[in-house]
Amino acid sequence: METPVVTRQTRFTISTRARAMTDVTAEVAALVAHSGVGSGIANIFVRHTSCALLITENADPDVRRDLETLARRWAPDGDPAYRHALEGDDDMAAHARSVLTAVSLTVPIANDRLLLGTWQGIYLWEHRNQGHEREIVVTIIPC
Amino acid sequence: METPVVTRQTRFTISTRARAMTDVTAEVAALVAHSGVGSGIANIFVRHTSCALLITENADPDVRRDLETLARRWAPDGDPAYRHALEGDDDMAAHARSVLTAVSLTVPIANDRLLLGTWQGIYLWEHRNQGHEREIVVTIIPC
Amino acid sequence: METPVVTRQTRFTISTRARAMTDVTAEVAALVAHSGVGSGIANIFVRHTSCALLITENADPDVRRDLETLARRWAPDGDPAYRHALEGDDDMAAHARSVLTAVSLTVPIANDRLLLGTWQGIYLWEHRNQGHEREIVVTIIPC
Repeated sequence: METPVVTRQTRFTISTRARAMTDVTAEVAALVAHSGVGSGIANIFVRHTSCALLITENADPDVRRDLETLARRWAPDGDPAYRHALEGDDDMAAHARSVLTAVSLTVPIANDRLLLGTWQGIYLWEHRNQGHEREIVVTIIPC
Repeated sequence: METPVVTRQTRFTISTRARAMTDVTAEVAALVAHSGVGSGIANIFVRHTSCALLITENADPDVRRDLETLARRWAPDGDPAYRHALEGDDDMAAHARSVLTAVSLTVPIANDRLLLGTWQGIYLWEHRNQGHEREIVVTIIPC
Repeated sequence: METPVVTRQTRFTISTRARAMTDVTAEVAALVAHSGVGSGIANIFVRHTSCALLITENADPDVRRDLETLARRWAPDGDPAYRHALEGDDDMAAHARSVLTAVSLTVPIANDRLLLGTWQGIYLWEHRNQGHEREIVVTIIPC
């Protein structure tokens, strides 16, 4: 008789592209399916301060494009008021964009699945001008 | 002997009014009271991308009015830079306002009650120009 | 034989300085170390509506200074559009800044420690012009 392998906490790495969003919904959903947790919550956490996690519309890619347009207003690159610019014009802007969005998301689980709405996707938003390796931690907790 | 009925995860729907905040603190508090969880956390999640959950001041309604004033600056309606405008001038603005606030909140529970501060209320913020039916999921986890 | 004392929920108070960030990472880490929870999540919650919790870069203090510069643009003090100004020019701005950041953070725990990235610190951000006593609740949940 086999013991089912269940894992409630997993770390994985995503290779990002510059200031683009990467859909990680399927990765998180697969971890939920293998967690042995039927009802509860999944916490998704990114271990960096210049990218972010967000839940947004998953149908029209223009939504993500327009969010990028707005983010450049909320925290302009190379603003003369910034003191922190060690890694370039996008350095401080990336930290500020990360603070305005989030590095941690919590999503309910029901019937062994993420209880997202029909139009909700989970995205990793790279806030730097170059792609990076970004580490995500998913922790699944029963209720 | 009766078995007490305890429920740790509940879904319910709120009918919103245009760009107004609806206080859902009492609904969440009632679910905590019936959860059988004395100490832990309550996660509140809204299954949409054009409204949001927030915790803010519950005393002076002008705080919520002024937040609405600011939100219209953070993400203006009908901005010519937007490409996504399928459902009208408020469509993209609503998605952006949702990203700047949150679709998921986690609040501690102690002594069978939400451990909110005296002036903290939990609100559902409708970011569209018309009222909608919005589904909320509350998941309660013991510590 | 001694029973180890483990506590999964703790409340403590921080004395803040005006619009400065106070690093609370060590306080939260110590509570995790004494929780008896090896893997799971820590939720950090602040019971006020005019300050916030955030995770940001912990190396260069200019990052926190530049975030303050940007926050004053996101929600200007004494804006003539505000109706809520009971406690002064910084009153409504503080509520708005709190909504744009967060009052609740959830961080994963692995191997008895917070699984923060190398450059991530947990900060309490005082959004008022004067220091206050701010109460924080840390709740630790096993996975």
